[in-house]
Amino acid sequence: MNKLRWNNDYNQGAHPAIIKALEKTNNESYCGYGLDEWCKKGADEIKKHLGGRDADVHFMIGGTQVNFTVITSALRSYQSVICADSGHINVHETGAVENTGHKIEALPGTDGKIQAAQIKEAAESFRVSDVKEHITEPKMVYISFPTEYGTIYSLSELNEIRSVCDEYGLYLFIDGARLGYGLGSPECDVTMEDIARVSDVFYIGGTKCGALFGEAVVILNDALKIGFRSYIKQNGAMLAKGWLLGIQFYTLFSEGIYFDCMKAASTEALRIKAAFEERGIKSYIESYTNQQFVILTEKQMEQIGEKHIYEYEMKLGDGIHCVRFCTSFATKHEDVDALIEDIAKL
Amino acid sequence: MNKLRWNNDYNQGAHPAIIKALEKTNNESYCGYGLDEWCKKGADEIKKHLGGRDADVHFMIGGTQVNFTVITSALRSYQSVICADSGHINVHETGAVENTGHKIEALPGTDGKIQAAQIKEAAESFRVSDVKEHITEPKMVYISFPTEYGTIYSLSELNEIRSVCDEYGLYLFIDGARLGYGLGSPECDVTMEDIARVSDVFYIGGTKCGALFGEAVVILNDALKIGFRSYIKQNGAMLAKGWLLGIQFYTLFSEGIYFDCMKAASTEALRIKAAFEERGIKSYIESYTNQQFVILTEKQMEQIGEKHIYEYEMKLGDGIHCVRFCTSFATKHEDVDALIEDIAKL
Amino acid sequence: MNKLRWNNDYNQGAHPAIIKALEKTNNESYCGYGLDEWCKKGADEIKKHLGGRDADVHFMIGGTQVNFTVITSALRSYQSVICADSGHINVHETGAVENTGHKIEALPGTDGKIQAAQIKEAAESFRVSDVKEHITEPKMVYISFPTEYGTIYSLSELNEIRSVCDEYGLYLFIDGARLGYGLGSPECDVTMEDIARVSDVFYIGGTKCGALFGEAVVILNDALKIGFRSYIKQNGAMLAKGWLLGIQFYTLFSEGIYFDCMKAASTEALRIKAAFEERGIKSYIESYTNQQFVILTEKQMEQIGEKHIYEYEMKLGDGIHCVRFCTSFATKHEDVDALIEDIAKL
Amino acid sequence: MNKLRWNNDYNQGAHPAIIKALEKTNNESYCGYGLDEWCKKGADEIKKHLGGRDADVHFMIGGTQVNFTVITSALRSYQSVICADSGHINVHETGAVENTGHKIEALPGTDGKIQAAQIKEAAESFRVSDVKEHITEPKMVYISFPTEYGTIYSLSELNEIRSVCDEYGLYLFIDGARLGYGLGSPECDVTMEDIARVSDVFYIGGTKCGALFGEAVVILNDALKIGFRSYIKQNGAMLAKGWLLGIQFYTLFSEGIYFDCMKAASTEALRIKAAFEERGIKSYIESYTNQQFVILTEKQMEQIGEKHIYEYEMKLGDGIHCVRFCTSFATKHEDVDALIEDIAKL
Repeated sequence: MNKLRWNNDYNQGAHPAIIKALEKTNNESYCGYGLDEWCKKGADEIKKHLGGRDADVHFMIGGTQVNFTVITSALRSYQSVICADSGHINVHETGAVENTGHKIEALPGTDGKIQAAQIKEAAESFRVSDVKEHITEPKMVYISFPTEYGTIYSLSELNEIRSVCDEYGLYLFIDGARLGYGLGSPECDVTMEDIARVSDVFYIGGTKCGALFGEAVVILNDALKIGFRSYIKQNGAMLAKGWLLGIQFYTLFSEGIYFDCMKAASTEALRIKAAFEERGIKSYIESYTNQQFVILTEKQMEQIGEKHIYEYEMKLGDGIHCVRFCTSFATKHEDVDALIEDIAKL
Repeated sequence: MNKLRWNNDYNQGAHPAIIKALEKTNNESYCGYGLDEWCKKGADEIKKHLGGRDADVHFMIGGTQVNFTVITSALRSYQSVICADSGHINVHETGAVENTGHKIEALPGTDGKIQAAQIKEAAESFRVSDVKEHITEPKMVYISFPTEYGTIYSLSELNEIRSVCDEYGLYLFIDGARLGYGLGSPECDVTMEDIARVSDVFYIGGTKCGALFGEAVVILNDALKIGFRSYIKQNGAMLAKGWLLGIQFYTLFSEGIYFDCMKAASTEALRIKAAFEERGIKSYIESYTNQQFVILTEKQMEQIGEKHIYEYEMKLGDGIHCVRFCTSFATKHEDVDALIEDIAKL
Repeated sequence: MNKLRWNNDYNQGAHPAIIKALEKTNNESYCGYGLDEWCKKGADEIKKHLGGRDADVHFMIGGTQVNFTVITSALRSYQSVICADSGHINVHETGAVENTGHKIEALPGTDGKIQAAQIKEAAESFRVSDVKEHITEPKMVYISFPTEYGTIYSLSELNEIRSVCDEYGLYLFIDGARLGYGLGSPECDVTMEDIARVSDVFYIGGTKCGALFGEAVVILNDALKIGFRSYIKQNGAMLAKGWLLGIQFYTLFSEGIYFDCMKAASTEALRIKAAFEERGIKSYIESYTNQQFVILTEKQMEQIGEKHIYEYEMKLGDGIHCVRFCTSFATKHEDVDALIEDIAKL
Repeated sequence: MNKLRWNNDYNQGAHPAIIKALEKTNNESYCGYGLDEWCKKGADEIKKHLGGRDADVHFMIGGTQVNFTVITSALRSYQSVICADSGHINVHETGAVENTGHKIEALPGTDGKIQAAQIKEAAESFRVSDVKEHITEPKMVYISFPTEYGTIYSLSELNEIRSVCDEYGLYLFIDGARLGYGLGSPECDVTMEDIARVSDVFYIGGTKCGALFGEAVVILNDALKIGFRSYIKQNGAMLAKGWLLGIQFYTLFSEGIYFDCMKAASTEALRIKAAFEERGIKSYIESYTNQQFVILTEKQMEQIGEKHIYEYEMKLGDGIHCVRFCTSFATKHEDVDALIEDIAKL
């Protein structure tokens, strides 16, 4: 019997509607490099959710690629990007941002989040410096929604961050690799329109949210739109058969899959969370999205590992560890039932 | 009626066997980042064609990405790469190689090719320089097989280039974005084993050769293997769902599609070439692979353009232009019949 | 007896007035990093020669450093710089510009110069391209005044280049490593005011023109002034004891040394040129500044080399070579007499 | 009356012997780019202090330039450098290291120092990681001797750090911008031979230690010697009139000035430290070199500021601040007397 995989949210292909769409269009021929009609249609669907803000939508292939391309396109070489110390760009992208020449100013996060006051302090510290040429200028704020720990910013937190960005002339870049899971969480009071309103640029994750691969970058701030296709190409991020990306996002958005499917996944994750709680097993961090970080003993890890694959995170103490269970767009209700049953036996 | 597209070789999806394979595995779950069993199987199939040389095979997403990642991983910052002035890295990658910090030393090509003697001259010029610290050191040779003009190096040309590389300690990197079309040309006396024997690193194009997307990088030289997965990740070129690449290359190679299909396409291209010749229309460059560059008058362009899409290349003189017609893995014999019929009427 | 050195123009210390000024101020204490009163005074002296244009003047240490710092500060990563194939940035700076991420678009020079029509062609080629994202955008023109071959642009040539730059939105950057020798040539119809009028940024060479070291960067275009001190610091080009640069330029400009001394050197160079001509020895390039490139036989090279050091340039044919003789701010009239005497004996 | 400057250690020219040497050689002519006899002589003097280790000595212009050039020459793009959070490269070089593409892994320092155990933990964390391609590989340790806070590592601390570096294959790079002040401290049990023994590369500061400008880079590890002159040139750090650097270091080392003069400065600094202590004013950090960080009230700051210039560091609490007083090679005993007198009156 195969074990069930809960270790991450990118271990299966795509939503069946996407496979069907790819199959259906496979013999059609298209214009290359994202200038085809599917990319246009995909972008148009996305634009319906931006509250009317004028945006450029670009389809790229993966998250790391989006992150460093957006950041390097926006900043001068002496400008830095502020993020939580647990931010993906700071810890899991092999120094990709630094490789483009920019310093990351990592602030201590709480549950994976940073707050407006912290950002203000960093920006103010630069503003009052009398050796500005000797230090990097914080010019962009990078946050993940949801965060790498599955937590989400509230609308008021986002609004406060936006205010600080306005006050100090900072760009706000929201990494939405798991955006759908955040928007679909019952604890979320933020909409995609809000995301578009508060950010200068954000991206809508596809890879972890129902697509085979692909991320949709949404640029709201005109200053950041300049030459972006050149940055995409130069960084090897322009898919020759761009329509493959357009079709996927069109499928996810035109049929509402993106919202429904990820909402279902977050809901399933909360069933898992509840099952752990019922069993008296604590969360490492209180997440209300598709990623659940729980604290297990080694015995529990061994027992649940017999039928289930989780991701090991870190040691917390003697015989006590943090592990991750993820649901995804592809998670089946009955598989969650099976997991819950096994959790109850721990 | 839709026009037939001959403008490039990446305007349709994938070989049907690939779509079928993706569909079949869509509900399976896999380990991420190219560490899955499909990538292993795909690599194993490729290794059968390397004449027994010990190689690392990595799957990446697109050609530009491969080119700059390979080059930057191989060179110190003061080292440069030699290529033909028409080389893809020199003219169609938005300065991606320079963006990684390296100078391209472009030599005047003949029919898209450079010769061993030219490379020797450039390398010798550095060797005898007494201001070595003031100039860049040529350390790698980049050639395309087939070239951007569809031409192919003969085995003896490749052997001579290899000799110069050995003499001067240069790496030889072969861009095989269209490798299958070259190997499948009736004029080709080179095998994939030869490619593997003469090069330090090369890549097998998938995007233009039957895959939805993807390129297989084959590293032969041990010095170039160090840390390559880190370079892939850092440059945003590591696909989260890496098995999508493995499956595609496994499908193309395990069933012989890669060789048969591209050979058929080159054969179809030669029928088009013959049709133009019969009609008295000259080639801009004599190509025996899937890309045909022909010289048309404006009237001919207009006439053929009624039913066919070609790629405009450049003006050659008063009312005389160079245009490109490509076949691909997806080209149908009957479509070529139709094109030939229309060529005859020019 | 020591041989006389004519091989370059940076083989002696500084004008005696500079040594005296450094000695006199050695026990004074100053504010660091170029924010002292001498840098202000040096800049003020330079500003007297800019025809009233509003400029930022920064003192840096050497030419390569100036070149790549100016270029990288001005360009986005997908933008390139146009220059003559013999341009210093293209051939003698170890790929420093590429190391900052930018492609150099080298155009074939004539006597070290490029013309407005060539620049227009390159810029137009980008303007009409329909694959702009796949190629680099030429955004800056780099010329040297005088050129690396000692030749100088006429005022009308500069005006024409400026026109093209205006038409295509290109920045004009003038490398004035040897500016004084150019302005001081009897063949020159250009003034420093002209240089300031036609360029967006230029620099006044000190290292080769009477200073121990140092170059004064003059930024005229407001867009290029942004954050320049940060770029200087980040690139390791900000001298801690910045007043050392300010004092040197103040000394050179406040006492007219910069103009008088370099004019004298160019005048002496023309005596050498005349001596070679009288002896029937041809110039490789007709230069009217301090660098003279002449064509010698091997026997002549040996004979003149007994008492004089020249710089070997390249082989021109069987037993025929191009060599360089330079004068400098430090050249003595009687040493030129001695050289001329020996030339006559060839 | 001019105030006395104590704010930094680079506010005056050079040791008089250097000015004299520059004056004396000003009319001599030399070979360029550091290939002259003075650079050889300067390097030879330095080599006498390396305990017989085989070293390459290169003269560069300033500290930031040395730091990023050494680091980028030593590391692959996915490798990072470990340092104290207060390390100069992390806080006062405008992101120069990141600009070359490398992440800095800043560890929390104690009194400006990091300990072997911290380095071991960071290196071990990478060693045991199972996602090595997703994170940067720590490959170099950067420490300053003395630190930016004037503190010094003991010999046993250095030996322990070296052991960890050996265990994990890390390079040790010692920033000796103020090396002389450290070696000359009465609390120091480390010699220059020790520095050369434990490090793979270090530099001997000149700018802050008696020279007009200049730093001597000493490369001990053969792997780091490769192509270093090319890195120097490419980064704009190769002085055309290189002998100016050679003369300065020859003068400082051949006459023992480097050791005597900096020792005197550290001794004077301890007199200042004692004066503050006597007056009941605490140090922010206990430094036994030329930089003294003391805690003053605003009233004290104002009073001492009437006749003396210090550097403001940071606010520590209500009305309580940290300020810096530095001595240097140029500090006069009687000026210290005057300062001490004024401290007593606080």
